[in-house]
Amino acid sequence: MNKKHNFSAGPSILPQEVFQKASDAILEFNDSGLSILEISHRSKDFVAVMDEARAIVKRLMKIGDDYEVLYLQGGASLQFLMAPFNLMKLESGKAAYLDTGSWAAAAIKEAKKLGKVDVVGSSKEENYSFIPKDFKVGPEYDYFHFTSNNTIFGTQVHHFPDVDTLKVCDMSSDIFSRVIDFNYFDIIYAGAQKNMGPAGTTLVVVKKDILGKTGRDIPSYLDYDLHIKKESMFNTPPVFAVYTSLLTLQNLEKNGGIEAVEKINNQKATLLYDEIDRNPLFETFCKKEDRSVMNASFKLIDESKKEEFDAACKAAGINGLNGHRSLGGYRASMYNALPLESVQLLVDVMKNLK
Amino acid sequence: MNKKHNFSAGPSILPQEVFQKASDAILEFNDSGLSILEISHRSKDFVAVMDEARAIVKRLMKIGDDYEVLYLQGGASLQFLMAPFNLMKLESGKAAYLDTGSWAAAAIKEAKKLGKVDVVGSSKEENYSFIPKDFKVGPEYDYFHFTSNNTIFGTQVHHFPDVDTLKVCDMSSDIFSRVIDFNYFDIIYAGAQKNMGPAGTTLVVVKKDILGKTGRDIPSYLDYDLHIKKESMFNTPPVFAVYTSLLTLQNLEKNGGIEAVEKINNQKATLLYDEIDRNPLFETFCKKEDRSVMNASFKLIDESKKEEFDAACKAAGINGLNGHRSLGGYRASMYNALPLESVQLLVDVMKNLK
Repeated sequence: MNKKHNFSAGPSILPQEVFQKASDAILEFNDSGLSILEISHRSKDFVAVMDEARAIVKRLMKIGDDYEVLYLQGGASLQFLMAPFNLMKLESGKAAYLDTGSWAAAAIKEAKKLGKVDVVGSSKEENYSFIPKDFKVGPEYDYFHFTSNNTIFGTQVHHFPDVDTLKVCDMSSDIFSRVIDFNYFDIIYAGAQKNMGPAGTTLVVVKKDILGKTGRDIPSYLDYDLHIKKESMFNTPPVFAVYTSLLTLQNLEKNGGIEAVEKINNQKATLLYDEIDRNPLFETFCKKEDRSVMNASFKLIDESKKEEFDAACKAAGINGLNGHRSLGGYRASMYNALPLESVQLLVDVMKNLK
Repeated sequence: MNKKHNFSAGPSILPQEVFQKASDAILEFNDSGLSILEISHRSKDFVAVMDEARAIVKRLMKIGDDYEVLYLQGGASLQFLMAPFNLMKLESGKAAYLDTGSWAAAAIKEAKKLGKVDVVGSSKEENYSFIPKDFKVGPEYDYFHFTSNNTIFGTQVHHFPDVDTLKVCDMSSDIFSRVIDFNYFDIIYAGAQKNMGPAGTTLVVVKKDILGKTGRDIPSYLDYDLHIKKESMFNTPPVFAVYTSLLTLQNLEKNGGIEAVEKINNQKATLLYDEIDRNPLFETFCKKEDRSVMNASFKLIDESKKEEFDAACKAAGINGLNGHRSLGGYRASMYNALPLESVQLLVDVMKNLK
């Protein structure tokens, strides 16, 4: 197997051990004589998977029983709708949103269908090249929503704002990548397909006591409280995606948890950004202070070098380096499972470009 | 590998070839040097998967370009909400529902959140033991909704009613199992996890020209029209579940399509129901004329035989025969991938019970 260096923005690289175990479980799961794909979600074996997949998130995040952990479907895009459905008051609902990129803007669009949305900070006019910081959010808002990491533009929120209402965060692209105080948040959601598993499930971490206060009659699938009551089994969960997420989180825990991976993530980011800053051929799209540790979006200053650089990347076995179609250039996604060696290889290719 | 005879109601058995190919693709997909779990959903290789997964449904169903095929998330449970969101008129909305079981009732519950629902037929008072047939649905209804097969109670709609409005069908548990005129329907949806793939994706087949007529501002993820415009890639699709569904449908097509599998499904059902009718120890829960070819729900007339029967089933390697918790007894789910030999084995165990 001629393994690539996979910088894909998501779905993205997972630990090799996870691929092997997931592949094995499709042939036979837990010595059951059955594939993981054909077992009942109500079977003892899968209920144990779901229970542990929920418990390990609490351990890794160091959060208590005031939180519940859910594995849902529909991606962050469905959470853009579910969060306001569960938190925005029926008549006088009002929420504060930080507009830091395309996904933040998509979240704002859905929230507006349910109530008033105030955009308390936006870098849209400057092509999302920085994280707005000078804003206040008072208790008159039902909640404050932000995106912790912006995959497309390569920016990341490094200091969580001091706001005076519930905090809801789309953490899809940097969850489990750095030591933070998860207790700061009231709702965290994340599509699994970057740091924590394959595409097909969405992690939702929710503080129980904030629910049930909007006066809304919430449709069943959109109701966090119902999913909590059903222990994430309101309907058939995405069995394989939950199992593979558990494998990924078990691999993280075994290797020292978030503390350990954060160190490697910082090494990878430093290695790449140092080269971008040193190399006169490259530059990033965003302000230095807001650079993302997960996704480095950068470009060639001289576009005429593109063909040569692309060919050198291809020859080195580098995959998934194209920038998002809305921004162009390059994007090196350095999620938890990407080895330091892959970043070193990319840096070598950049160094060799003359 | 000590393979079981898997009668599980869903997630359920898939063809052995599908398990092998899915397992292989997790180690390496399409000679790409990458796992199917780490490739971008925008990659050429996966776009080809999605295109073919949509095209093969049209070929198998013999439907034309007036229909679109989508692979979504959230199961049939989210479709209970999406169908009315897309079809029920904003102010004067009114829909007709057939109440044939727990899932039909769950669909009714969601639709009531968006408009008026008339239950035009129900067998609830007789524990869903038959399919109501004497009802009329006129053009004053925005649409008519029914469940083609009721997994829990073991009933199936064998003759599609002549109604004078749009027809919406939850076909989760008998899709691709029998030759029917798919052109009869305006919307068909199905959780994949029975006849067409693993848990984690939902097939939606929708007639394009029925959309956009409600006056509703539909939230993005719930909007069929948006998913159609984005070719089922509005957001990251459940890559692995879509791929494995394609493998399952390719296996069906290669083996003669719906026509061929229908014959085997009828053989399996005849074999089992003949034994239930012959054997004085067993009986079904439902009316003979409404029995499902997919799920035979039955019970022991003399409960004292339970321990002996359960032990004999276990010894024979039979898995997943327990009835749904709401009904008790047994349920033999005989989906497309279940071999005739497995049903023969179950029948032998039943014959040997004295």
